[in-house]
Amino acid sequence: MDQRIREHAETLVDWSARIEPGDDVVVSVAEGAHDLAVAVAEALGEREANVVTTYASDEVSRAYLRAHSGDFDEAPAHELALYENADSVLFLGGGRNTFATADVDGATRQAAARARQPIKEARMETDWVSTVHPTRSLAQQAGMSYESYQEFVYGAILRDWESLAEEMAELKSVLDAGSEVRLVTGDTDLRMSIEGRTAVNSAASVAYDSHNLPSGEVFTAPYDTEGEVVFDVPMTISGTRVRDVWFRFEDGRIVDFSAEAGEETLGDLLDTDEGARRLGELGIGMNRGIDRITDNILFDEKMGDTVHLAFGRAYDACLPDGESGNDSAVHVDLITDVSEDSRLEVDGEVVQRNGRFRWEAGFDTDG
Amino acid sequence: MDQRIREHAETLVDWSARIEPGDDVVVSVAEGAHDLAVAVAEALGEREANVVTTYASDEVSRAYLRAHSGDFDEAPAHELALYENADSVLFLGGGRNTFATADVDGATRQAAARARQPIKEARMETDWVSTVHPTRSLAQQAGMSYESYQEFVYGAILRDWESLAEEMAELKSVLDAGSEVRLVTGDTDLRMSIEGRTAVNSAASVAYDSHNLPSGEVFTAPYDTEGEVVFDVPMTISGTRVRDVWFRFEDGRIVDFSAEAGEETLGDLLDTDEGARRLGELGIGMNRGIDRITDNILFDEKMGDTVHLAFGRAYDACLPDGESGNDSAVHVDLITDVSEDSRLEVDGEVVQRNGRFRWEAGFDTDG
Repeated sequence: MDQRIREHAETLVDWSARIEPGDDVVVSVAEGAHDLAVAVAEALGEREANVVTTYASDEVSRAYLRAHSGDFDEAPAHELALYENADSVLFLGGGRNTFATADVDGATRQAAARARQPIKEARMETDWVSTVHPTRSLAQQAGMSYESYQEFVYGAILRDWESLAEEMAELKSVLDAGSEVRLVTGDTDLRMSIEGRTAVNSAASVAYDSHNLPSGEVFTAPYDTEGEVVFDVPMTISGTRVRDVWFRFEDGRIVDFSAEAGEETLGDLLDTDEGARRLGELGIGMNRGIDRITDNILFDEKMGDTVHLAFGRAYDACLPDGESGNDSAVHVDLITDVSEDSRLEVDGEVVQRNGRFRWEAGFDTDG
Repeated sequence: MDQRIREHAETLVDWSARIEPGDDVVVSVAEGAHDLAVAVAEALGEREANVVTTYASDEVSRAYLRAHSGDFDEAPAHELALYENADSVLFLGGGRNTFATADVDGATRQAAARARQPIKEARMETDWVSTVHPTRSLAQQAGMSYESYQEFVYGAILRDWESLAEEMAELKSVLDAGSEVRLVTGDTDLRMSIEGRTAVNSAASVAYDSHNLPSGEVFTAPYDTEGEVVFDVPMTISGTRVRDVWFRFEDGRIVDFSAEAGEETLGDLLDTDEGARRLGELGIGMNRGIDRITDNILFDEKMGDTVHLAFGRAYDACLPDGESGNDSAVHVDLITDVSEDSRLEVDGEVVQRNGRFRWEAGFDTDG
């Protein structure tokens, strides 16, 4: 086995999920993630955790959803019981075709998501972590050779996470102390309240309320959003290419939208439920190990010089204890490039300009 | 998709598992069974069942077991909850290497089986069915080309099960009325009590208390076994070749054994627990669609002109309501060829001689 796969598994199990002996772990394995599943099983065996391995096949999901009438039972008891009794869920992504579910009807997809909402909630109550195994399909999506893509993925994952966590703490302290964020680029001018919300230093570990490996972003849960935003980073959402999305917010709600590509898919997602029309997340990418857009949200949203917003569900970690943020069955991230002609302000003070933070060399104090 | 895969899935879901709308189903997918999993998901979607798909990878299991200390937690809560809340479990076998777990220590294997016994029991409380998808690995094990092996598998599975069930009812009625079975071949002379036990007409459907697809055997749960038996059909057990096994029984217990190959593996299995030393099953193969030994127990034990015995756990279906038969964490089948120089007697009357049943043309009444 490629030694990098073992290191990936160990980083996932130890740094990210903090697995302890006796933990009840669900390992969800995508079609192309077999080799990582073997390495993760080895790491979990060594740590004497208990494992149920699920098969997260896009082709299996597609066949099921296309055959179903769309009248789904809410939260099947067996699946709910599995996650309610789990301590951790490790999602090993990495499929064989990023368009495997492209011909599943949007309404069916959302009906299934709504019916399975309590299961999603049970999973999110665990120490869950999402990661990805480099597959040829993902290399293709990224426009890269397989070997180069493997180098890219492990370059993003096998990092000094403790050191990155310290860098990100700086931005977290600014956001925690702030009340309003303003994002300005060529065609974006958006204001969001963050008063009372807590930013997450997303250092790829549940110990930091961070659930992605790789990570490297600071995010919070904004509300009362006003203004317009354009997302210029193209991506694939639910198997559909989405490009140049424009949103207009009034009173915290998306009241108008368009997209150069994927507008119908986007509309379906925004119609999932009322919460889908409001923001759930503002995230600021700080992982400069990720040096290019690869059309994979797990990586793209962490890239340095990008900012992303998600419509839909907010993460509880950003809310005061016991309070809930925006609720929805969906959480869809969209990304904008802030490397040029941009500024991010907190309470009127510029924190990042043209991709540089104010504590970094090269920050232009005058704009 | 090969239309035979769809027919296989429909036979499994409708004839075998009798899935109804709203059933909570677990589908266990072996490494090579992806295509069947897709067809089964389609069939389950059409029938509006609820599905959790698990990944039954031998390589994942091997990595976990080899890394573990061997001190396993008993019945992890998340896995137990999954099966306790399931209506049906569909095991889709079909690996990529029949020796994938050959280098896992026998003691570790048995310790894991013991710790997971309550989970096995919960699974066996459901309407479970085991089937197999034809893979290149299984074709190799059978000594056959891939295409010929596919024909063999679908020939055994896509049958007129209702008609075979009627044929098998004849033997069931003889066994249900009988008290003692005697099996005699060249080097075997074994007596077993079956008084008070109920034979199962294993017609590949939970409606017949039959949990294998294909099936085509009649089996019961013998006890008070006395005598000697030789199993001359070679097979692979726990990744080890086993050949020419000899058992001597006294007072229902295996008191001596040997094997030309695989003796150590066999010894480990017999040492799992006290119940491993007693018989759990006597089965008589009646599926003449299975025309050769392919080193796969799911097929071999159903073959016409064979008789098999399993040491370890007995199936509750053979016991009076509320009573339990032999208990063990293992259930290991061994097969003997009865096509020549053999007879099977029930209460002194010959029921089968040299493979022919007494109601069949060609039965030699005089021996």
